Amino acid sequence: MSTNKKLKIGLVGGGPGSFIGAIHLNGALMDGLFELAAGAFSSNPEKSKQRGEELMLDPSRVYSSYDEMFEKELQLPESERIDVVVIVTPNNVHFDPTAKAIRAGFHVVLDKPLTLNYQEAKELYHIVKNSDRKFLLTHTYSGYPMIKQAKQMIAEGQLGKIHKVYVEYPQGWLYKLLENENNKQAEWRTDPKRNGLAGCMGDIGTHAFHLAEYVSGLQVEKVCADLYIKVEGRPIDDDGVVLMRFNNGASGVLMASQTDTGLENNLKIRVFGDKGGIEWQQEDNNSLIVRFPGQPAQIFRAGTGYLGSLAQENTRTPAGHPEGYVEAFANLYRNFARCIYAERAGETPKPEWEDYPGIEDGIRGMAFIDHVLRSTETDYKWTPFIVEK
Amino acid sequence: MSTNKKLKIGLVGGGPGSFIGAIHLNGALMDGLFELAAGAFSSNPEKSKQRGEELMLDPSRVYSSYDEMFEKELQLPESERIDVVVIVTPNNVHFDPTAKAIRAGFHVVLDKPLTLNYQEAKELYHIVKNSDRKFLLTHTYSGYPMIKQAKQMIAEGQLGKIHKVYVEYPQGWLYKLLENENNKQAEWRTDPKRNGLAGCMGDIGTHAFHLAEYVSGLQVEKVCADLYIKVEGRPIDDDGVVLMRFNNGASGVLMASQTDTGLENNLKIRVFGDKGGIEWQQEDNNSLIVRFPGQPAQIFRAGTGYLGSLAQENTRTPAGHPEGYVEAFANLYRNFARCIYAERAGETPKPEWEDYPGIEDGIRGMAFIDHVLRSTETDYKWTPFIVEK
Amino acid sequence: MSTNKKLKIGLVGGGPGSFIGAIHLNGALMDGLFELAAGAFSSNPEKSKQRGEELMLDPSRVYSSYDEMFEKELQLPESERIDVVVIVTPNNVHFDPTAKAIRAGFHVVLDKPLTLNYQEAKELYHIVKNSDRKFLLTHTYSGYPMIKQAKQMIAEGQLGKIHKVYVEYPQGWLYKLLENENNKQAEWRTDPKRNGLAGCMGDIGTHAFHLAEYVSGLQVEKVCADLYIKVEGRPIDDDGVVLMRFNNGASGVLMASQTDTGLENNLKIRVFGDKGGIEWQQEDNNSLIVRFPGQPAQIFRAGTGYLGSLAQENTRTPAGHPEGYVEAFANLYRNFARCIYAERAGETPKPEWEDYPGIEDGIRGMAFIDHVLRSTETDYKWTPFIVEK
Amino acid sequence: MSTNKKLKIGLVGGGPGSFIGAIHLNGALMDGLFELAAGAFSSNPEKSKQRGEELMLDPSRVYSSYDEMFEKELQLPESERIDVVVIVTPNNVHFDPTAKAIRAGFHVVLDKPLTLNYQEAKELYHIVKNSDRKFLLTHTYSGYPMIKQAKQMIAEGQLGKIHKVYVEYPQGWLYKLLENENNKQAEWRTDPKRNGLAGCMGDIGTHAFHLAEYVSGLQVEKVCADLYIKVEGRPIDDDGVVLMRFNNGASGVLMASQTDTGLENNLKIRVFGDKGGIEWQQEDNNSLIVRFPGQPAQIFRAGTGYLGSLAQENTRTPAGHPEGYVEAFANLYRNFARCIYAERAGETPKPEWEDYPGIEDGIRGMAFIDHVLRSTETDYKWTPFIVEK
Repeated sequence: MSTNKKLKIGLVGGGPGSFIGAIHLNGALMDGLFELAAGAFSSNPEKSKQRGEELMLDPSRVYSSYDEMFEKELQLPESERIDVVVIVTPNNVHFDPTAKAIRAGFHVVLDKPLTLNYQEAKELYHIVKNSDRKFLLTHTYSGYPMIKQAKQMIAEGQLGKIHKVYVEYPQGWLYKLLENENNKQAEWRTDPKRNGLAGCMGDIGTHAFHLAEYVSGLQVEKVCADLYIKVEGRPIDDDGVVLMRFNNGASGVLMASQTDTGLENNLKIRVFGDKGGIEWQQEDNNSLIVRFPGQPAQIFRAGTGYLGSLAQENTRTPAGHPEGYVEAFANLYRNFARCIYAERAGETPKPEWEDYPGIEDGIRGMAFIDHVLRSTETDYKWTPFIVEK
Repeated sequence: MSTNKKLKIGLVGGGPGSFIGAIHLNGALMDGLFELAAGAFSSNPEKSKQRGEELMLDPSRVYSSYDEMFEKELQLPESERIDVVVIVTPNNVHFDPTAKAIRAGFHVVLDKPLTLNYQEAKELYHIVKNSDRKFLLTHTYSGYPMIKQAKQMIAEGQLGKIHKVYVEYPQGWLYKLLENENNKQAEWRTDPKRNGLAGCMGDIGTHAFHLAEYVSGLQVEKVCADLYIKVEGRPIDDDGVVLMRFNNGASGVLMASQTDTGLENNLKIRVFGDKGGIEWQQEDNNSLIVRFPGQPAQIFRAGTGYLGSLAQENTRTPAGHPEGYVEAFANLYRNFARCIYAERAGETPKPEWEDYPGIEDGIRGMAFIDHVLRSTETDYKWTPFIVEK
Repeated sequence: MSTNKKLKIGLVGGGPGSFIGAIHLNGALMDGLFELAAGAFSSNPEKSKQRGEELMLDPSRVYSSYDEMFEKELQLPESERIDVVVIVTPNNVHFDPTAKAIRAGFHVVLDKPLTLNYQEAKELYHIVKNSDRKFLLTHTYSGYPMIKQAKQMIAEGQLGKIHKVYVEYPQGWLYKLLENENNKQAEWRTDPKRNGLAGCMGDIGTHAFHLAEYVSGLQVEKVCADLYIKVEGRPIDDDGVVLMRFNNGASGVLMASQTDTGLENNLKIRVFGDKGGIEWQQEDNNSLIVRFPGQPAQIFRAGTGYLGSLAQENTRTPAGHPEGYVEAFANLYRNFARCIYAERAGETPKPEWEDYPGIEDGIRGMAFIDHVLRSTETDYKWTPFIVEK
Repeated sequence: MSTNKKLKIGLVGGGPGSFIGAIHLNGALMDGLFELAAGAFSSNPEKSKQRGEELMLDPSRVYSSYDEMFEKELQLPESERIDVVVIVTPNNVHFDPTAKAIRAGFHVVLDKPLTLNYQEAKELYHIVKNSDRKFLLTHTYSGYPMIKQAKQMIAEGQLGKIHKVYVEYPQGWLYKLLENENNKQAEWRTDPKRNGLAGCMGDIGTHAFHLAEYVSGLQVEKVCADLYIKVEGRPIDDDGVVLMRFNNGASGVLMASQTDTGLENNLKIRVFGDKGGIEWQQEDNNSLIVRFPGQPAQIFRAGTGYLGSLAQENTRTPAGHPEGYVEAFANLYRNFARCIYAERAGETPKPEWEDYPGIEDGIRGMAFIDHVLRSTETDYKWTPFIVEK
């Protein structure tokens, strides 16, 4: 990596009480490729300042809005200016800062889902596509090494023709009206104005959807969705299931819930082809179970020498030294950095580095939200899945 | 148990190459409550004779047809005559021997599903209901002690109001056209004439359906099914998924497959209520995971003293001495025997003993097959689930 | 199997409150090769009679002592007489009934350990060796199919030269003075007069020792033992560890406990050679983990087609239909029966059938008890392990 | 945390091919409390320079020796100068840089074990104790949140009086003479001159020993060790077992291996008291199994609200978002930083922050190495464990 400076981050959001903001920083900082240089942490200037102090930031680069940040940073010499804007705000504050950051010439890292609604997504799609700035949408789970291994094995045809994808994302934390108990995370994620019209399906169903397409290499062509409000008084879905058909004829089932009482976050995916099958779950993220008929199941493990290049490029510890969620984030960030460095050096990045989620994944995720909401409303079984751009 | 003789079994089916016949015997014999006294093992007299020898049966009680068996056994003194007819033939040979055995005054144990088709089921329903003979339909999985524990905890309200039931039954053995490779099991199970019109859903989907209703104590009210033929050239479904709604409003997902390449038989069920959730899978059948919010998950274990009466009555080894599939069968048989003994003694059986699947479960299972086939055909999302009797 | 009658069992012990007696029967009866024909269930004639009734035995064949049973049974015509004596009494009643049964011409199944003490063992060894009667010592765990698979793979050299054997048998049920709380099992197992001088090591350490030698194919040559009384007031060991060296130079560690508070019965063994390693635990008894360097771990599963002959001969259900502890017993009994049948038919039994524990295993187990007691007493690290016969 | 600058690290070692150097950096950088400011990465100046470039360090602060680094850094203004020296060299280069760094007034983070031999350890002990500089010895595994939870539960008496500690650290990577295949890690770790006289026991046995004492709160008083060279031609132990007795009379077993063919790094600990027991393994590091008699086992999970303060202070993700090995390092570093910040602010650090391994742990680890080597040599079973300082 022939470069000589860390990439400077300007953070939008991540004020006191943010969950995902801190995780983004852990992931970005871990490998020493990024440094936090500026931030607009909160729309409340006091809170923004406080968070800047906690993060030991130069006070002159703690801003009270992202507009101010973009403006002031552009006035700094290029060598001091931020390189990358990282946006970790609620969904209603995704479109505007992303669009402005891209237009101001910054690379952007944005937490999922892409935008508040499909309309915004279609607009943002063109802004990003028409720019030469790089864009990372943090579908974290695609950063796990054993997910990458599964993707590569499937792409290489090791499982034969894929005929089924199961994906489930069960959480239980919203089993009651936590949003009425002063829980910030619950408040915005169940508020259609800040979160969008799909609750559970928007928040974690989109992760599951992305993972299904990412790992299988297939694309959904029609859906049959059933979304539920399991906790009375909640305005948006907190549970649901989606049947899917993929572009090669494969079937799929996607289940997501925030009311599977007692469960944490054990995202799980299984893919079956006519030659074999794979199984992965986040609780045991360093293992990938691979099965071929008539043979013992095999437990592929992160950090081993027998893995493919995609997994190899996305680990940092030897086998048996578990990596986790923060490292999955770090993998996305590291690949993003490697691509920026390669571009600066006029070099071609490795394909393994370019394998991070971007605007195409983002627009598909928003289409997923749109289609499952529509499918839930209709009496017909199948709703064709067509991504408008 | 104040009785002084073992119950005598007359077996229908279970000839050479049968899988389930041998398992029925293992389960029936294990606890010393039954003995094999007669059999019509095959429609081929030579094969029937051969199997009788293997089983060390008195040759005079090895018959070449069940008709002959019923006739001849009735001529024996009551103390020698068979008490129970056990029927382990393919589905097209369920209705006739069951109806005749009941009418001849025998108790009947029948392997699932009830009959070849819904029409037969409705007829058999009335024959059994109008008789005073006992009838056991071997939905094996409801015989597992930790399944019984789950059922009891839910019935007692420990999980609160149930709002979701997930059940999956993934097998992989039919990932290719095994029926063309001289595999007897594959042959009849993929042959609509012997198996009925639903393949995978009839064979194992019905088990999953039964388990969902048994454990939750709920009843399905509508379904949205999608059945697939994953292996080209197969006449009936080998994979499928069913969305369900229960009579209390709970949602459900049922997945069954015989083409999940590489998988064995890891039936799994999860039920969630507003107070807690349970999880059980056959591969770890002696454990039941119970989760309440804000507490560590608890691993309930078979054979322990803290279990409820339903589980206690359905084990025979202390904790840590694993019981399995054969013991699940044995539990069904033991409960069935206990009820027969109680009746003979003029005693009231314990409710725990009467908790074995019977004709009501059978008719519902056949209705399930009928409805998922119809739902697969229609363009409408939901098909009301109405059991005709 | 060209035979025409079930083997008749005469049971010694197994009265009310017995744990292992009932399990022996489950195992013996399951496959339909044995029937219970007679019993001396308790030294208390009332209790013996009561148990006979529960087991639906002919009252004329319920005896008040094993002496009476042997005498009376010998007076019956050979075709009615018991074939096999099954002895499930406490250890102080092992030697005498076994010796007498053998001398009376019966085959014998005896629960482990062989005898109350080493002296008795040496005497019994010669009685059994000098007789032509068959003798099965129920080291149950060697009946598990995946243990058999491990043994075969090691014998075939698949793991290379074996250099380590880890075996552990952790229970927790004696974490307090249960023997003072009217628990029959705890009473005799902690009473040196009925159990012998080694408590935990005699009861379950001998199982672990047998498994270590059985699976590895090696023999212990020296031991360094440390036995403990963890619960104050108990007269004999309830916990301990033994370092071992085998006859090929391999090292070993054996841990056994009845005071590992909260644990059940998860016997576990791991064996490592210079080419690979295996791991098995009773809680997941249908799986065997096999590891070769530089490859994914492989999960071998019971009931699959890729297993060796030793495992194949010791299952009865297809993959994914779990067998357990009772089936492990049943495997021992079935192999024993097959050998008896083969002998009667003048045929050579398959080597897989002859693979059941017998008198050589018994004397080695008693030598193990003797040596670990002596090693615990000495200040020297190593005590040579020499089996006197 | 009222401070306004990151702690500056000067790294000793961690040149090309180093494993642990990179991990230290990941852990140190993740939480944004440290930055890499200087380094003497290799005794080869070219390699040091190359590594400095990779790490995007200011070339003027890449040194060719740690002596040079200490000298030059002391000439910088205090606000620019490094605060903490992190030493990740082989064991023969632990004493000298640590002693010099401490004397030069830097805080020190040192990879375990403390020194090359016991003699050096005793000397270093006094240098560190007589200084006011802080010292962190990276016994990584004590940084895992669920290990902290176990420690706290035991310290609070939740398991009652502890009577047993099992700890095992099985690796398989040295199952062959990898040191002859140009593997840098294998080379120095099997070289007595760079590694010290205990191979496996020094490298990973010391981790296991630390964990046993850390979690139980007990101290070893005597040992009975048996170390082995399993791979012919290797000069030092690659496998071994140690029996232990603790200062409250509890027994212990410690197993460590680098020749358990096929295994990775699944460090495991179990502790039993008269009221309950715990079990933890690194492969499932976010879970702690807690068992009380007569109750279902409980799975305590990292990131949940029911954990004690020690675990709470050592996580950064909510339950179900797995943390791993790098986060365990990060926890050590974060606590170390918090203590330095507290000192600078004149505040008392929380006890949870001060809970990181230091010089007392270091001297005990070296005593462990010394005693197990001596115990292996003697014919007596027990060797008293006395820590000289």
